[in-house]
Amino acid sequence: MPTVLQLKEEVLAANLELPKHGLVTFTWGNVSGIDRERNLVAIKPSGVSYERMKVEDMVVLDLNGERVEGTLRPSSDTPTHLALYNRYPQIGGIVHTHSTHATSWAQACRDIPALGTTHADYFYGAIPCTRALSAAEIESAYEANTGKVIIETIGDGDVMAIPGILVSEHAPFAWGKDADNAVHNAVVLEEVARMALFTVMLNASQHAIPDHLLNKHYLRKHGSNAYYGQGTPPEAVPAKPRRVA
Amino acid sequence: MPTVLQLKEEVLAANLELPKHGLVTFTWGNVSGIDRERNLVAIKPSGVSYERMKVEDMVVLDLNGERVEGTLRPSSDTPTHLALYNRYPQIGGIVHTHSTHATSWAQACRDIPALGTTHADYFYGAIPCTRALSAAEIESAYEANTGKVIIETIGDGDVMAIPGILVSEHAPFAWGKDADNAVHNAVVLEEVARMALFTVMLNASQHAIPDHLLNKHYLRKHGSNAYYGQGTPPEAVPAKPRRVA
Amino acid sequence: MPTVLQLKEEVLAANLELPKHGLVTFTWGNVSGIDRERNLVAIKPSGVSYERMKVEDMVVLDLNGERVEGTLRPSSDTPTHLALYNRYPQIGGIVHTHSTHATSWAQACRDIPALGTTHADYFYGAIPCTRALSAAEIESAYEANTGKVIIETIGDGDVMAIPGILVSEHAPFAWGKDADNAVHNAVVLEEVARMALFTVMLNASQHAIPDHLLNKHYLRKHGSNAYYGQGTPPEAVPAKPRRVA
Amino acid sequence: MPTVLQLKEEVLAANLELPKHGLVTFTWGNVSGIDRERNLVAIKPSGVSYERMKVEDMVVLDLNGERVEGTLRPSSDTPTHLALYNRYPQIGGIVHTHSTHATSWAQACRDIPALGTTHADYFYGAIPCTRALSAAEIESAYEANTGKVIIETIGDGDVMAIPGILVSEHAPFAWGKDADNAVHNAVVLEEVARMALFTVMLNASQHAIPDHLLNKHYLRKHGSNAYYGQGTPPEAVPAKPRRVA
Repeated sequence: MPTVLQLKEEVLAANLELPKHGLVTFTWGNVSGIDRERNLVAIKPSGVSYERMKVEDMVVLDLNGERVEGTLRPSSDTPTHLALYNRYPQIGGIVHTHSTHATSWAQACRDIPALGTTHADYFYGAIPCTRALSAAEIESAYEANTGKVIIETIGDGDVMAIPGILVSEHAPFAWGKDADNAVHNAVVLEEVARMALFTVMLNASQHAIPDHLLNKHYLRKHGSNAYYGQGTPPEAVPAKPRRVA
Repeated sequence: MPTVLQLKEEVLAANLELPKHGLVTFTWGNVSGIDRERNLVAIKPSGVSYERMKVEDMVVLDLNGERVEGTLRPSSDTPTHLALYNRYPQIGGIVHTHSTHATSWAQACRDIPALGTTHADYFYGAIPCTRALSAAEIESAYEANTGKVIIETIGDGDVMAIPGILVSEHAPFAWGKDADNAVHNAVVLEEVARMALFTVMLNASQHAIPDHLLNKHYLRKHGSNAYYGQGTPPEAVPAKPRRVA
Repeated sequence: MPTVLQLKEEVLAANLELPKHGLVTFTWGNVSGIDRERNLVAIKPSGVSYERMKVEDMVVLDLNGERVEGTLRPSSDTPTHLALYNRYPQIGGIVHTHSTHATSWAQACRDIPALGTTHADYFYGAIPCTRALSAAEIESAYEANTGKVIIETIGDGDVMAIPGILVSEHAPFAWGKDADNAVHNAVVLEEVARMALFTVMLNASQHAIPDHLLNKHYLRKHGSNAYYGQGTPPEAVPAKPRRVA
Repeated sequence: MPTVLQLKEEVLAANLELPKHGLVTFTWGNVSGIDRERNLVAIKPSGVSYERMKVEDMVVLDLNGERVEGTLRPSSDTPTHLALYNRYPQIGGIVHTHSTHATSWAQACRDIPALGTTHADYFYGAIPCTRALSAAEIESAYEANTGKVIIETIGDGDVMAIPGILVSEHAPFAWGKDADNAVHNAVVLEEVARMALFTVMLNASQHAIPDHLLNKHYLRKHGSNAYYGQGTPPEAVPAKPRRVA
């Protein structure tokens, strides 16, 4: 079982991947990871620059948001992360960014349809855009309510089959089996959003790819029949992931 | 109290941030900072390349534009900077760039509406585009008149609540509590302009976010109830900044 | 005659050109090369990162897909590569990427018309987009069928005169006289796709350039009357390449 | 008087600026410079990569295109350069690129209107797009005829007042008082083309800026009343450059 220090190191490393992949301006992004044995979450501190961030700056919290380790204030988006960890036990890491193209789709309040196989390799259907939060939801417990509308949008769907979402008028969240995998999915989400923007400019009425192509590509990489890569074990993914509509 | 040399060093460092953040081509940009105790402004010299710029090249002026230190000609935009410093005592630093996306909005003569929370984290309402200058305003005292139309647009509004503006058919100006903070706001303005372009391409009729979301995000980061970052002190910002319409 | 080790080294080097030219995110791309004397194909292994890839990781196969050298699983797109090598003896190297702009055209299911001389210097007519694969073609022998629709689109045309194609709803393939030349053409395809996107945004009804300009530019660089570069020998290209409609 | 070796060094240095500023893919660009005392032109060799180019690779020609120094074949665009040097004695350096955004305007067969002050600082009116060459002009003496349509477009206008042009269906040319200045103008042309694309996307009916703003910005930097930079001498520019319509 990895130690809490290892979790903090993984979360720091995952945070440092964000500027490397061009996903953040200044401090606009945060990554967390969870130790499901100990029910402890490590998360980036609020408003600290990536250049200066150290492993001891990572804040460790329990699932009620009580601080267990660290002296800095955790990311202001912590309640959103905790809401998702509490609702979906499959999630091992979460990322929030304001990456340019994904944020543009969120600002346009549009789902990103599955327009090609790049999308289908990672996201088993459209990447949804949540409804806008109400005034009451924004004025009180805003970040927790952001988690609430994300959960409302996903519902009982297979949260790992579409590991990302757009919060209306705001920006994307992505997740994965751990912090590193969550960042991987955030990179893909940004690139998929960029290609989808250009696709829509070339063909405004372009529809989503058919189910047989979506299935093929998603299941090439996921589930017990995956054949992409070097013999990836079945992992936690069910034999045939349930598609989110 | 910082020395004049320190002011020049800060202004040099802030100018060097412009190419680092991709905001300038060649010498198309300038940053100034002001010492409000001494009423002295340090500004980049005109047409000097960023690679060769040294601290002794910074030009120091009083608020009437009289040179106090330095041998080079100050930026040709100096009268615009001085007009803003004279009118708004809250401003501590000013940046002018021709950054690609903000300039494109200025050339299109369109305000940038607050389309999402990235905008709302820094700008408390639409980033306005000034009216075009008249022929007479352009032909005589052009740079001072550029300051005049900026001031006419802001009026008695809270100048720090929307720390940037687009000059019609020209390019953006941004400001902040000091030179470094002004550059920070210029970087944000460019990124916000880029996202807004893509948002408008995805949804041409997208409207500004509602006031409750604008308030929430802006006030998360500004004023006495701010809770973003590591316990930032209230600073010069009023408890509840006045929103510019 | 080059050795199999030299082929593997060339294929490794060509694969490493993909991230250098910004054509791939993560492991989304693969290059192969063929030794036509030995009828052996070297190809990138599946899902291995470019940072860690070594010459011994290259997989060597015969034209039936039987592994001759290497212990890793070959790229999942191997059957597409083999279909093209088997059908077109002129092809010496093949590249598959999900490069941003070419993929956007593929997702929009649009041919890239020859809109200018940059295109005409390399592609002797529109870069076609294949038809979409049927459900049956996707569900069984998908990658081989991807090769089939590419071949169906090219037919008996001069495969080297338009060394790239868009697979509908998917992404581009490019090829060349060897692995390195195939990557060169993939770089050009991406840049041509990018310019064509912007051209269409500026002039939605822009038509292809006339045949006399297409002929001039293509034949400046190809065939026995080529006069671009330093006296390139006629190579395998016929005196006047046959134009693909 | 500079030596021929100095001219070749200047031309090499100017060519190496092209990849540094992101204006070229592979070898798609060339710069030349002229010694007006000796009537000798130095130009990049055809199809040689920028990484390997050395000063002795530069080809020196007289104004009839006869080779005076160098063993390599000169750029295939040499007759275009020579046509411009012969027609306009003010030109000291010429650049041809396929830079992305300028080429997109050329492919769209549209002039770039003067949409803002960035444009007006360098180009004293719209950057014109030539007519398309006829089949006969393309089939014989193509590169010389490219020079002919450029000259036909500029006519007796002040060639230095708008130091760049778009060749229809092809790509841009730019020029300046020497090779280095020509590259400077090519960089500006590309950035102006990029901003103009985004401006048109934001406001499809945006018109050119009024003459009083165009005059102000152009004359801030050019002619005997220029006040931008550190006391630039009047140079070869007339007191009031003649505006090209």
